[in-house]
Amino acid sequence: MPQRLVPLVVIRRLPRYYRYLGELLNNKVYRVSSTELSEKMGVTASQIRQDINYFGVFGQQGYGYNVEHLHSAIGDILGLNNGYKAVIIGAGNLGRALANYSGFSKRGFSVDAIFDVDEKVIGTKVSDILVRPYSEFAEYTKKEKPDIAILAIPKTSASKVAEHLVSCGIKALWNFAHIDLKLPDDVIVENVHLSDSLMTLSCRMSKKGDTK
Amino acid sequence: MPQRLVPLVVIRRLPRYYRYLGELLNNKVYRVSSTELSEKMGVTASQIRQDINYFGVFGQQGYGYNVEHLHSAIGDILGLNNGYKAVIIGAGNLGRALANYSGFSKRGFSVDAIFDVDEKVIGTKVSDILVRPYSEFAEYTKKEKPDIAILAIPKTSASKVAEHLVSCGIKALWNFAHIDLKLPDDVIVENVHLSDSLMTLSCRMSKKGDTK
Repeated sequence: MPQRLVPLVVIRRLPRYYRYLGELLNNKVYRVSSTELSEKMGVTASQIRQDINYFGVFGQQGYGYNVEHLHSAIGDILGLNNGYKAVIIGAGNLGRALANYSGFSKRGFSVDAIFDVDEKVIGTKVSDILVRPYSEFAEYTKKEKPDIAILAIPKTSASKVAEHLVSCGIKALWNFAHIDLKLPDDVIVENVHLSDSLMTLSCRMSKKGDTK
Repeated sequence: MPQRLVPLVVIRRLPRYYRYLGELLNNKVYRVSSTELSEKMGVTASQIRQDINYFGVFGQQGYGYNVEHLHSAIGDILGLNNGYKAVIIGAGNLGRALANYSGFSKRGFSVDAIFDVDEKVIGTKVSDILVRPYSEFAEYTKKEKPDIAILAIPKTSASKVAEHLVSCGIKALWNFAHIDLKLPDDVIVENVHLSDSLMTLSCRMSKKGDTK
């Protein structure tokens, strides 16, 4: 059990820890030292030890960490056992790519519906998920109570749609639209700004940044 | 001109500055104070001033920053005027979504080809970009010298394909495969780990992390 709230900067490192520990388990490696973790993750060993202290998992001198305990403690903090239900807003290329994305079920998420306004795609299925008319979103949400809406629509309509989603009761958004949404404080928004990542790449290529 | 290498942690903030300054310009706002920037960006004013010192742009007491100068200086650091040429590896849902993504041209990138091994998609076009057989990649690269390869293929084949791309002369990868690639030090890899972002969202929802 974590003893206190984990700061966001530590949270952002957890998925990588979780991924790497999962690989160790796949390779039947059951213990790991902070030094080994440090080398693999490119983070100092003291940083690793500090981070892991948040998870209520303790290493043993001369033994290191129990990989299985650490993996499951981090999975718990990451909320991967909560069975969150998600819906995708937008059945364009990105929405379709996300519907086909296998990462959801692996991490305990289900994607139960896709919504769109385009008559041509409504009623079709993407990866066995039905595309429904967006006009039915409010009613659907009342009944099915999805936890997360995934915004895969253009920037131009994203703000209005996001406000509508929230007015229907959505409390968490995974936002792929290239815009910083302004929503009430109790709504959690995780942004995937692809062009920010593209610009970071470009900057590193232009040799004006320190790429280390 | 920047006086020294910009640290990666500052670089990662630049795209947001660039995006926000671009919005100001669109709204015909030509000057901005560090305090205003600070409020909009959720970063302290002293952090903003520190960051901006790297760009060789100086604010004036009582006037603030010239938005146009700042926007163009950051665009220069971000390498947005370098006309980088990209190719997409993988014409699946994600590759197709990326081919349709309007962010490339807006940031001075061109996407000139898509490569795939699937006979069914080879020869088709996505957003006017031809899907070519991956077997022609080496030859294509010798002739066209693309700067960036965008990896939109499954994790299982990503490592081998990435090594092959690098052996053909690719020096920068935008990686969407859910794996940390091990490549020579002079190859720049910018990862988009979607499931890391999804897990961060899940963690923030599970209320075990500090979401502020």
